[in-house]
Amino acid sequence: MVKATRLPRNEAGIETALGVLKQRFGERLNTGQAIREQHGHTTTWIENQAPDAVIFARDTAEVSEIVKVCAAHKVPVIAYGTGTSLEGHVNAPAGGVCIDLMEMNKVLAVHAEDLDCVVQPGVTREALNTHLRDMGLFFPIDPGANASLGGMAATRASGTNAVRYGTMKDNIIALEAVMADGTVIRTAKRAKKSSAGYDLTRLLIGSEGTLGIITEITLRLQGIPEAIRAARCSFPTVDAACRAVMGTIQYGVPVARIEIMDALQVKAVNAYSKLSLPETPLLLLEFHGSEAGVAEQSETFGAIAEEFGATGFEATTTVEERNRLWKARHDAYWSVLALRPGAKGIGTDVCVPISRLADCVTQAQTKLEELKLIAPIVGHVGDGNFHCSILVDMEDEAEVERADGFVGWLNDLAISMDGTCTGEHGIGQGKRPYLQRELGPATRFMAAVKAALDPDHIMNPGKILAD
Amino acid sequence: MVKATRLPRNEAGIETALGVLKQRFGERLNTGQAIREQHGHTTTWIENQAPDAVIFARDTAEVSEIVKVCAAHKVPVIAYGTGTSLEGHVNAPAGGVCIDLMEMNKVLAVHAEDLDCVVQPGVTREALNTHLRDMGLFFPIDPGANASLGGMAATRASGTNAVRYGTMKDNIIALEAVMADGTVIRTAKRAKKSSAGYDLTRLLIGSEGTLGIITEITLRLQGIPEAIRAARCSFPTVDAACRAVMGTIQYGVPVARIEIMDALQVKAVNAYSKLSLPETPLLLLEFHGSEAGVAEQSETFGAIAEEFGATGFEATTTVEERNRLWKARHDAYWSVLALRPGAKGIGTDVCVPISRLADCVTQAQTKLEELKLIAPIVGHVGDGNFHCSILVDMEDEAEVERADGFVGWLNDLAISMDGTCTGEHGIGQGKRPYLQRELGPATRFMAAVKAALDPDHIMNPGKILAD
Repeated sequence: MVKATRLPRNEAGIETALGVLKQRFGERLNTGQAIREQHGHTTTWIENQAPDAVIFARDTAEVSEIVKVCAAHKVPVIAYGTGTSLEGHVNAPAGGVCIDLMEMNKVLAVHAEDLDCVVQPGVTREALNTHLRDMGLFFPIDPGANASLGGMAATRASGTNAVRYGTMKDNIIALEAVMADGTVIRTAKRAKKSSAGYDLTRLLIGSEGTLGIITEITLRLQGIPEAIRAARCSFPTVDAACRAVMGTIQYGVPVARIEIMDALQVKAVNAYSKLSLPETPLLLLEFHGSEAGVAEQSETFGAIAEEFGATGFEATTTVEERNRLWKARHDAYWSVLALRPGAKGIGTDVCVPISRLADCVTQAQTKLEELKLIAPIVGHVGDGNFHCSILVDMEDEAEVERADGFVGWLNDLAISMDGTCTGEHGIGQGKRPYLQRELGPATRFMAAVKAALDPDHIMNPGKILAD
Repeated sequence: MVKATRLPRNEAGIETALGVLKQRFGERLNTGQAIREQHGHTTTWIENQAPDAVIFARDTAEVSEIVKVCAAHKVPVIAYGTGTSLEGHVNAPAGGVCIDLMEMNKVLAVHAEDLDCVVQPGVTREALNTHLRDMGLFFPIDPGANASLGGMAATRASGTNAVRYGTMKDNIIALEAVMADGTVIRTAKRAKKSSAGYDLTRLLIGSEGTLGIITEITLRLQGIPEAIRAARCSFPTVDAACRAVMGTIQYGVPVARIEIMDALQVKAVNAYSKLSLPETPLLLLEFHGSEAGVAEQSETFGAIAEEFGATGFEATTTVEERNRLWKARHDAYWSVLALRPGAKGIGTDVCVPISRLADCVTQAQTKLEELKLIAPIVGHVGDGNFHCSILVDMEDEAEVERADGFVGWLNDLAISMDGTCTGEHGIGQGKRPYLQRELGPATRFMAAVKAALDPDHIMNPGKILAD
């Protein structure tokens, strides 16, 4: 495990607050070790820092009530969704109360005419899309995990189709949130656009529970496209694949998904899924539109790809064939774990201007070889964002250290290329030093905003900013 | 004129700061009455409140230097672009120093492969598009006026093609800004997406110069589409036109522009531009894409429109014919002024969920008749945003009062429909009471952010929030 900073605990305050909450919530105040540790657990190599208690809140009023008790006694409050965050976002380095929001899982309204809906934070993206399917609507953001929409908002998540539909920041119209003093606010009305004052919606999106707890989300929806076409092809080099992507986007093809897998990742998935793809960089694509539209998009891409040496171009519209073409991507996560059983997969998340992507990926591959680390690469190549899944033997201290060194080296490389250490995972505990290096003086103003909205630093302390 | 609140002046501070700035900038510190009044002037009916001095800054270092002097003496600083804001945004109710940014008008870099560019705040959108044209690129946001990009960012502007390309908040990757203590920050790197900390980019966009002065903007660009198709048709009622628009968007047609003009507006433009359009609600559209794509989009729209009783459907791809079809919209502003020579045109800016748009427009028309006000309506109907251009005889006090009453009534109506008092113009001085009614408790947290980032309230005081 990688050590996490511990923060001073307000023992007296925690004891008092837990007493008050016990009075109010009785058995619903969970203090058992297993449930507490589970709520400190995240998909990370950072050590577990469990909260002192967990409450499954049922509505906004309860969240407000809990926050008010914690505020009165200066006790940390940590919001929790599906626990799929990757950088120690839900750890409790100063203890405190975890509010699990997964029982707040209702779709409160769907306004089909306005292409929006209102959901509670515990609705997962898959649950929402199941709810919407019969109405011919869908919510596009797909971060891989079946995350909660509250957590996705809090980390400014995105995923494979951000290249077409944007990230959470682009797909949220308004939020309801409980602020650090327990006040419930709405950040905006339901109009599609607004110039009404400071954009508190976007300020809360990506704030990782450090400024307020999101209790309701108004989301933009999309009509399910008439046709979906999948495609894939192989390239001689990462550089050639990236140039094909740049050409495609510059040409204005509104590609919905465009993913890259490096040679090692293709090799892993060939082994795991019994495929026989050429073990060179692979692009996987999806086009959304009318029947004629997706055919045209796919042809345009095919022609551009050919210029850059693409081979094995295949494209199809039927569901079964689409799944076959994309199988390599769907199985990527499992294929990586199978590459080295028992190892822990640690994901990096740098994002650079797309013109720097090939250089960044290639340098990363060289560095990984140097350090004798195994780390297949997948990337949301249309956004310049890619993930190395470093397979680490957590018992081997020297290897953990090398992996940690690689993460830092890569983050610094991306920052030097005018990129970011995190395209979609967030800062949490793990990337705080890199945020400082990335944005320097700006972080001082982030800290001022934090101090203004949460003067006692009770909202998810020890995340995003240095303490 | 409508009275504007005056704020207490820090006479001693202003005198000292002007002395220091005079030493540093000499003749470049403009204190003549005409230039000062011109910099208090905005396209509004709110009275002029001139600053004490105007400096045309040449670079970020100068902006920082001026802000530092003003901060040291607690003197207001107001950023100024083209002066096309509509709600008294650049008035100086407590005096102070206006920094005119129009000499900072360089396009610093165009990264064609990344589809972005870096500009100074005084570059206008037309100048940028002229600069980009030969590269096959364009910047889509079009608020009508040839505004500066800094001003557009500061007011979260949008315009006729926001339905496809979004608003300024969706098209800015990063900002450089001078904060209230003179510190220069960069809010983000140049990666297309990021989860790195609080979204200071979006916090500054729409903050109307009250949190910092934008000195550099990294913008997303688009490839000029292969084909552009324009279309227009008439509808029996506003409701029918709105239903056609909802149907089109729900169907997933990626319409680039979709504008409505009400019967009075059509009548005005028939008279002004010698057209013979049916004097019923008119929709004007633009489609961007491939040749085949725009033909398909236009046909799909035509079929949907027909279901809702559209007549006179025309569509075309050539530049001359497109200009002919859109002439009614291009001449709308002038045709309104010609309707009542000598009157001042006052624009409203409500934005509601699109399902409420027809109801909102229809109620507005009825109210205008009741109040005997002349106010043609144009609307960005795909966003639920429309403008009444109230033609007011500013000498007629009773009429000014009726118009002011109408503005308030309409803002309240929009808010009651879960909409906003401002879709794209901003709050400025004029809409401050409505922001309170619209977002209630949230404005207290906006004020906390303001106090944290600008503790002496020197950045464009008297705007957005109540003082």
